[in-house]
Amino acid sequence: MEIKEEKDLELEKSRHSMAHILAKAVVSLYPEAKLTIGPAIEDGFYYDIELDKPLSPEDQGAIEKKMKEILNKGEDFTRKVVSKEEALKLFADNPYKVEIINELPDGEDVSVYYTGDDFFDLCRGPHVESARKLQNMGFKIHSINGAYWRGNEKNKMLQRIYCYCFKTKKDLSDYVVMIEEARKRDHNKLGRELELFTTVDYIGQGLPIFLPRGAKVIQLLQRFVEDEEAKRGWLLTKTPFMAKSDLYKISGHWDHYKDGMFVLGDEEKSKEVFALRPMTCPFQYQAYLNKARSYKDLPLRYNETSTLFRNEASGEMHGLIRVRQFTISEGHLMCTPEQLEEEFKNCLELAIYMLKTLGLYEDASYRFSKWDENNREKYIGTKEQWDEAQSTMEKILNDLEVPYFVGIGEAAFYGPKLDIQIKNVFGKEDTLITIQIDQMLAQKFGMEYTDKDGSKKNPYIIHRTSIGCYERTLAYLIEKYAGAFPLWLAPEQVKVLSLTERNCDYAEKIKNQLFELGFRVECDNRNEKIGYKIREALNMKVPYLIIVGDEEETNGTISIRGRGFENKTGLQLSDFIERLQNEVKTKKI
Amino acid sequence: MEIKEEKDLELEKSRHSMAHILAKAVVSLYPEAKLTIGPAIEDGFYYDIELDKPLSPEDQGAIEKKMKEILNKGEDFTRKVVSKEEALKLFADNPYKVEIINELPDGEDVSVYYTGDDFFDLCRGPHVESARKLQNMGFKIHSINGAYWRGNEKNKMLQRIYCYCFKTKKDLSDYVVMIEEARKRDHNKLGRELELFTTVDYIGQGLPIFLPRGAKVIQLLQRFVEDEEAKRGWLLTKTPFMAKSDLYKISGHWDHYKDGMFVLGDEEKSKEVFALRPMTCPFQYQAYLNKARSYKDLPLRYNETSTLFRNEASGEMHGLIRVRQFTISEGHLMCTPEQLEEEFKNCLELAIYMLKTLGLYEDASYRFSKWDENNREKYIGTKEQWDEAQSTMEKILNDLEVPYFVGIGEAAFYGPKLDIQIKNVFGKEDTLITIQIDQMLAQKFGMEYTDKDGSKKNPYIIHRTSIGCYERTLAYLIEKYAGAFPLWLAPEQVKVLSLTERNCDYAEKIKNQLFELGFRVECDNRNEKIGYKIREALNMKVPYLIIVGDEEETNGTISIRGRGFENKTGLQLSDFIERLQNEVKTKKI
Repeated sequence: MEIKEEKDLELEKSRHSMAHILAKAVVSLYPEAKLTIGPAIEDGFYYDIELDKPLSPEDQGAIEKKMKEILNKGEDFTRKVVSKEEALKLFADNPYKVEIINELPDGEDVSVYYTGDDFFDLCRGPHVESARKLQNMGFKIHSINGAYWRGNEKNKMLQRIYCYCFKTKKDLSDYVVMIEEARKRDHNKLGRELELFTTVDYIGQGLPIFLPRGAKVIQLLQRFVEDEEAKRGWLLTKTPFMAKSDLYKISGHWDHYKDGMFVLGDEEKSKEVFALRPMTCPFQYQAYLNKARSYKDLPLRYNETSTLFRNEASGEMHGLIRVRQFTISEGHLMCTPEQLEEEFKNCLELAIYMLKTLGLYEDASYRFSKWDENNREKYIGTKEQWDEAQSTMEKILNDLEVPYFVGIGEAAFYGPKLDIQIKNVFGKEDTLITIQIDQMLAQKFGMEYTDKDGSKKNPYIIHRTSIGCYERTLAYLIEKYAGAFPLWLAPEQVKVLSLTERNCDYAEKIKNQLFELGFRVECDNRNEKIGYKIREALNMKVPYLIIVGDEEETNGTISIRGRGFENKTGLQLSDFIERLQNEVKTKKI
Repeated sequence: MEIKEEKDLELEKSRHSMAHILAKAVVSLYPEAKLTIGPAIEDGFYYDIELDKPLSPEDQGAIEKKMKEILNKGEDFTRKVVSKEEALKLFADNPYKVEIINELPDGEDVSVYYTGDDFFDLCRGPHVESARKLQNMGFKIHSINGAYWRGNEKNKMLQRIYCYCFKTKKDLSDYVVMIEEARKRDHNKLGRELELFTTVDYIGQGLPIFLPRGAKVIQLLQRFVEDEEAKRGWLLTKTPFMAKSDLYKISGHWDHYKDGMFVLGDEEKSKEVFALRPMTCPFQYQAYLNKARSYKDLPLRYNETSTLFRNEASGEMHGLIRVRQFTISEGHLMCTPEQLEEEFKNCLELAIYMLKTLGLYEDASYRFSKWDENNREKYIGTKEQWDEAQSTMEKILNDLEVPYFVGIGEAAFYGPKLDIQIKNVFGKEDTLITIQIDQMLAQKFGMEYTDKDGSKKNPYIIHRTSIGCYERTLAYLIEKYAGAFPLWLAPEQVKVLSLTERNCDYAEKIKNQLFELGFRVECDNRNEKIGYKIREALNMKVPYLIIVGDEEETNGTISIRGRGFENKTGLQLSDFIERLQNEVKTKKI
């Protein structure tokens, strides 16, 4: 059933009023400052000002102090309506405000908000009645960045003052703690520290290089996904990463997605133009088209560990979450109309199984992405087809009692989607998994099946991912577990540390025993202090450390540090192995 | 130690003489025919002639008959030397010969060969003394194709008469049988029939689509290779498939390999130009460069299941053997000079282990690919560096007693290679595996390690593949086993066939039991005759068929058809499972 997204309008209003308080503080401290705009955002507000002097951390403190003084006065916010001409006079010395006013239709009234008698700002409102209402709020200027006026690099560079702002001081401090914790978990920082991935300028943005530790996690995930899908009746394909433009012209990508694609060769100069694929659909359809199909062959489920390429703008890149090349657990399922709901349910169950296994299920929400009727050129197909596909999907989602938000204009160009959304550690939401219904592309590619009555029909196609994009999944896992992956996914599962040089052989023997059993294990026999070796291994989030000294060697035992063990000594290796094996087998999180 | 490639010059001479016999037969049958050239080739010879009438299969028979008549006369081949002017007169009515003669330096003598008194041809020779020497040869015209004069499509289209030609009639018939057998095994035909792969015009040449059966074999190979390499101390990486041109400018690819690369974007128009990678080297080096290295870290072995792209000309494509996108078991190993020989040996052992496991070892030969000193612009580095790298490699190959042929000018642009060559079913040789020594790229990329004495040094790099290119390996496996893969690699291992509709549940039960154990098994419960179902499964080269009827169901047994079993009945499923598990575990070939 649909869930409506609720906006806290009251908080938004308070934040925006607080932006005026900041503006008043700034101009009282720096009368030469020119105000521009100061909107509320998700964790507070910002205000862009023109001021030659770069604001220092000390200045931030001074502004905050001045804001508190202003708040303590408890002045009223009062609205005054003036004509465009009057407004232009009021703001005559501020070219930014003049520009905004001039863009208003002639004859329109302009509202100005006063905070007390001595400060006013051009503003549409609404605002709180009085600064008294803001006195309990928690706020904190946290950064000042450069920002071009109206985002255009040809304009003047302004100073953007970012301020956290919450209902209470407690809310603020909770948020600050959360952000500090998030920074520690930020995959783009932690993932590099843990040697999971890196990037290199001369290779390019959005093209992460997975180091052995990161590549190991992805290999484990990939095998897990491929095996689970095989069990559920999916047939693996492996299709090429590029095709002639001819293919994309049939699929509609050339008309509807070309800007997002990497094109190889010049259309005007070459006979053959290739493009890297942004999606697997038209490639995987070739497996279906390889022979004649009957209703008895359906459903046909094809999966692929598929690498895709999208020509994202440089500014859009972010760590492993938004990249130019990524690998995805892609699948296409061809079925009859009667099979559609059951198969959709199976796809959803598979996705949920994946999320639960990885421990990400609690962080997921559902988004029913529909087309935008007012933007018809973005889509293929008729209104009737869209109405049918969307109502089919809506019926299925309601039957399955999936609680979803609606996203208008977020459909694929060929059909509606159920997107499973995950928030990163900073609260930014992205799609991890998608399940889509498509009744258009089969026709375009001439995909048919012979039905019971001998007639030829186009199958429904479900496009789906199961775990989604491996890069993105890894990012969420790093953040979720702060790099301390569940044992089955840990790139290094056990580290054996020798206490003295005398114990190196014993340590090596234990390592070899675990290695033979298939564990990812290393030995640290360096001539370093044990405390140093332990710290280093714990920093790399190795789940278990085996420490062996003379005592362990004499008794044939081991000591353990790590998850659930704070320095346990005198353990039998065989008992520990059993524990490890069990933890891996159950994919304990 | 080096092995010299021996050419059978005697056979080559006989074949070329036989080409003159064919030419004499053609002009005696079709006096208007204009002869051009007729060289010996690896399985006989061809002759290109201009003749308006297209030669039919009947004509081929007539030519062969006439050739036999000529041979029976036992005429001598006699050489006559004439001046260029005389030659031009002799061949005045043949514009092709005139063109050839005119290209000779002025004043040079021209040799003409007579076969009997009534036929002569412009020819450098040598030839056998007499047609009597050719009377025991086996020959057969096997095809006639169009061919442009001198391969240039602006020239006239000639008829190229291909003729097999061997020392004896027995050699010929053996060869014909071999070719017929090869055609049945040709991966490009059989691989499609077995639904392993397909290609599609609108996707493009050299971009195979692996259908579920083929993708399964590649998945199995990939896991086998990755696991074996991990056991041997290789660390998996996963690096991007493209990079900015900046990277290739450092590596030398931009100067030495650009024509073979797919470039994205226009160098003149864009700030950033990307190219798809033709090799993994400079990408994998980034893992090494991720932190400072010491001699204690070496050797460092990185492997990757790496997809590469090469912009091959359309005419070069062949099935899975020559493609535009392929995936390779690539690896780069960084080591000290002292470690080089041991590590090279390990790489070679790994490659041999792979070949033996797959049953391809007997078909392999070794090629030591050196640079071409007279073609310096193809390579980076100095003569001293090349001499050193090549003599290091030669020493290692001799120490390891590797019997190798030498290929001049076949080195990589950065160093010499040991190439492991495999012949396809038609005898055409290609490189499957390569192991290369490189002492140049580490310097270019600033890859260093701190040696014992504290000095910074560049490591040696071994570039190597272990199984080679997966596509190509699959091609050889298809041809080697005529599609009947070893059980561990078979895409479908067992098929359960119900004898009657009554036995469908029992068949399904057995299938599920095998499926639970991880076997790739399907059930054929179609309402078809058992003979039809068996034939179909055997055509798809399924290793084992389990057939169940009333008798089996009553007794709780199974009947088997397949490898090593010709209709064995009354078997216990558990015994059969044990056999299967053993066959998979030992990777029996």
